[in-house]
Amino acid sequence: MVSEAKPEKAPDDVQPFRVALAGLGTVGAATVSILQETANLLAARAGSSIEIVAVSARNRNRDRGVDCSVYRWEDDPIAFADADDIDLVVEMIGGADGPAFALAKASLQNGKSLVTANKAMVAHHGGVLAALAEASGAAFRFEAAVAGGIPAIKALAEGLAANQIHRISGILNGTCNYILSTMEAEKAGFDHVLEAAQREGYAEADPTFDVEGVDTAHKLAILAAIGFGVVPDFGGVSTKGISSIASVDIEYAATLGYRIKLLGIVTRGGDGLVQSVQPCLVERGHALAQVMGVTNAVQIEADRVGTVVLEGPGAGGNATASAIVADIVDIARARQAHTPAFGVSSQALTKAMRGSEDLAMGRFYIRLIVEDRIGVVADIAGCLRDADVSIASLIQRGRDEDGGVFVVMTTHEAREAKMRVAITELAKVPSLRFPPVVIRIMEFAET
Amino acid sequence: MVSEAKPEKAPDDVQPFRVALAGLGTVGAATVSILQETANLLAARAGSSIEIVAVSARNRNRDRGVDCSVYRWEDDPIAFADADDIDLVVEMIGGADGPAFALAKASLQNGKSLVTANKAMVAHHGGVLAALAEASGAAFRFEAAVAGGIPAIKALAEGLAANQIHRISGILNGTCNYILSTMEAEKAGFDHVLEAAQREGYAEADPTFDVEGVDTAHKLAILAAIGFGVVPDFGGVSTKGISSIASVDIEYAATLGYRIKLLGIVTRGGDGLVQSVQPCLVERGHALAQVMGVTNAVQIEADRVGTVVLEGPGAGGNATASAIVADIVDIARARQAHTPAFGVSSQALTKAMRGSEDLAMGRFYIRLIVEDRIGVVADIAGCLRDADVSIASLIQRGRDEDGGVFVVMTTHEAREAKMRVAITELAKVPSLRFPPVVIRIMEFAET
Repeated sequence: MVSEAKPEKAPDDVQPFRVALAGLGTVGAATVSILQETANLLAARAGSSIEIVAVSARNRNRDRGVDCSVYRWEDDPIAFADADDIDLVVEMIGGADGPAFALAKASLQNGKSLVTANKAMVAHHGGVLAALAEASGAAFRFEAAVAGGIPAIKALAEGLAANQIHRISGILNGTCNYILSTMEAEKAGFDHVLEAAQREGYAEADPTFDVEGVDTAHKLAILAAIGFGVVPDFGGVSTKGISSIASVDIEYAATLGYRIKLLGIVTRGGDGLVQSVQPCLVERGHALAQVMGVTNAVQIEADRVGTVVLEGPGAGGNATASAIVADIVDIARARQAHTPAFGVSSQALTKAMRGSEDLAMGRFYIRLIVEDRIGVVADIAGCLRDADVSIASLIQRGRDEDGGVFVVMTTHEAREAKMRVAITELAKVPSLRFPPVVIRIMEFAET
Repeated sequence: MVSEAKPEKAPDDVQPFRVALAGLGTVGAATVSILQETANLLAARAGSSIEIVAVSARNRNRDRGVDCSVYRWEDDPIAFADADDIDLVVEMIGGADGPAFALAKASLQNGKSLVTANKAMVAHHGGVLAALAEASGAAFRFEAAVAGGIPAIKALAEGLAANQIHRISGILNGTCNYILSTMEAEKAGFDHVLEAAQREGYAEADPTFDVEGVDTAHKLAILAAIGFGVVPDFGGVSTKGISSIASVDIEYAATLGYRIKLLGIVTRGGDGLVQSVQPCLVERGHALAQVMGVTNAVQIEADRVGTVVLEGPGAGGNATASAIVADIVDIARARQAHTPAFGVSSQALTKAMRGSEDLAMGRFYIRLIVEDRIGVVADIAGCLRDADVSIASLIQRGRDEDGGVFVVMTTHEAREAKMRVAITELAKVPSLRFPPVVIRIMEFAET
């Protein structure tokens, strides 16, 4: 077994590969731990020993559970970019701009390879950073930025290199999937579950980025760039979160044979690339519907391979550090012949042509809460008829405690643009108590 | 998008990467098709154009749906090994020895990289071939040999390089999974479903390698080598197939909350590596239990990342060719800095210490068909008691058409060695009509 393996010859002849770490939070400490504790295994896999030479963080004296005192300390990690004894910088500071981006740019400009878990930075500045990397011959990698410990980027950029990608659909945010799973298991409302998740550390104090889909959108923009050969286009992602999902929607979805999942989806529409983050109804038998709790999953549909699904832990110090160290090992092994950041050279990346969802066909779930008055259902049905959207099923359920009546419908295939018209009209129905909740029903081919 | 990308500069400056294909069956033809039809995309991903220069097959004139007449033809592919204009040989002949192995050895000895889908050859001779590759600086890769289009080897060898692997469990044979899935869906017997599968092309005319677990064992030995840093040890795999599984077992398993899956499992026991292929009861809620039909899946449990599951098509020309071409692209890109065949250099691979399952603890499902006589259940229960195996549940069901009675039990945790004693004794119970059917119950941590 490797951990007890005969010492390999190569590492003795080869220069050690020298790494500097910026940011020593949970992920940083787990990265140090892996590099320290599995040094022999990693040397055997990388073909050279991997050595931490310098570290940087906000607080030098915090107890991190790992001994960083043996490494050179820098108060400002930007010093890594100029150091002669550093081959690779790991950026774990976070934030799309600021010190993280400054460090990334300076490192790559000076020919130091960069590994990062920073999805916001890659989604916003990935194209620029990839070009800097190529100009200096450095590597730029970010496996940890998407789906935590799942080697999703490697699978897409390298493992499926022979394929033209049709669609990528991912459960990319553990907090949202945890909330939706718990709402189902406990028949509880969104606010209640969110509060519990915050207490248990599954959600941030300010959960906006997670629950409103922004974090998923960052990750989707990165997957889209690799899958479709475009510069990451975060601005092109149409984003909707899960805060409008009620317990009753999860219940009705179950009655209809579905689960609600927040999906990031990218596909090629008739007029360009369509990137969206939105809650979706997914058939309960489908692999993505069965991913529960904080687990992430990525489904890739491609011309040659068909459908591949990868699932695993999307967050956590060790899982994220696993992805960071895999990138380091790859770069140490390859030395010069790096896989480009987005699978092809940055010059080959095109600017994303943003497609509109208007042309897309889809089925929809619509949930309304209305006053219990004569003619309400006729009003509602009329809005859909006038917009040329056909109703597939309709459930009307007796009054809730406030006297409101639930009306839940599913539609047949309808053009997204027509659906928008229908929703605008529905919102004007006088007896409507709240804005309509509309959720797309995802159709996946049998895997 | 890449397929319409601006032509990259690199490919023009760089020598094309020259490939020869040996064997032009379904997989070979699909490989030609990908290399022809996505040449631009592949060039962008590999950093150089990939050109087929020569092909070889048994029959030159067969219509394969792709035009191979433009390539040099060799009646004997061994000529590839000596050709100056070939960088990489793709072996798609099949068979552990014979012409496939001769071609593989000669190619690697002469410094030509080798890509193969030949699981039998890698399982039997992988160590020798990896050493030849390293000696000459060539690459040796076989992503297509395990789990078809799923990038499982890449995920394990590279994506999870930071991890020590605890256990790998895989549904690695589509034929067996199709048969088990169909037996459940149609409540039909093994022989009946196998015949239908043969008619529909899901099973070979001689299905022995598939249904008796040999094919799964080949693939498991390869995954075990990468995950645990050993020379592939096919002889060390304890192998049991699915031909003894009856419709009634699938039914009882369902009653108890399980599905029966043929799993290849490798883990580190107290005294060495334990590799086994056997039908297992898997909880219906677990990801592996939900993999139906010809789909394959690989679950990897590791110290840092936790549990990762990959699923997708395990066979088929296009899916297999997808994996072959991914290997070619990787090798073309890396030129010299190849990932070693088994993740570490062949000198670092150890000889597998074969562990025994005797020390392992497990729960078991036991199904008996007995004569309906007084005292039968007492006899059965006595065998288990005497072997120190404790019964967790027992179902006795009235007579079948031949007057036999089904007795189905599950055990509490028991040492495998004690279970073997119990089975030996059970087989001697005089009223037993058939040998006992014993199936392991797999316990997986929540993912």
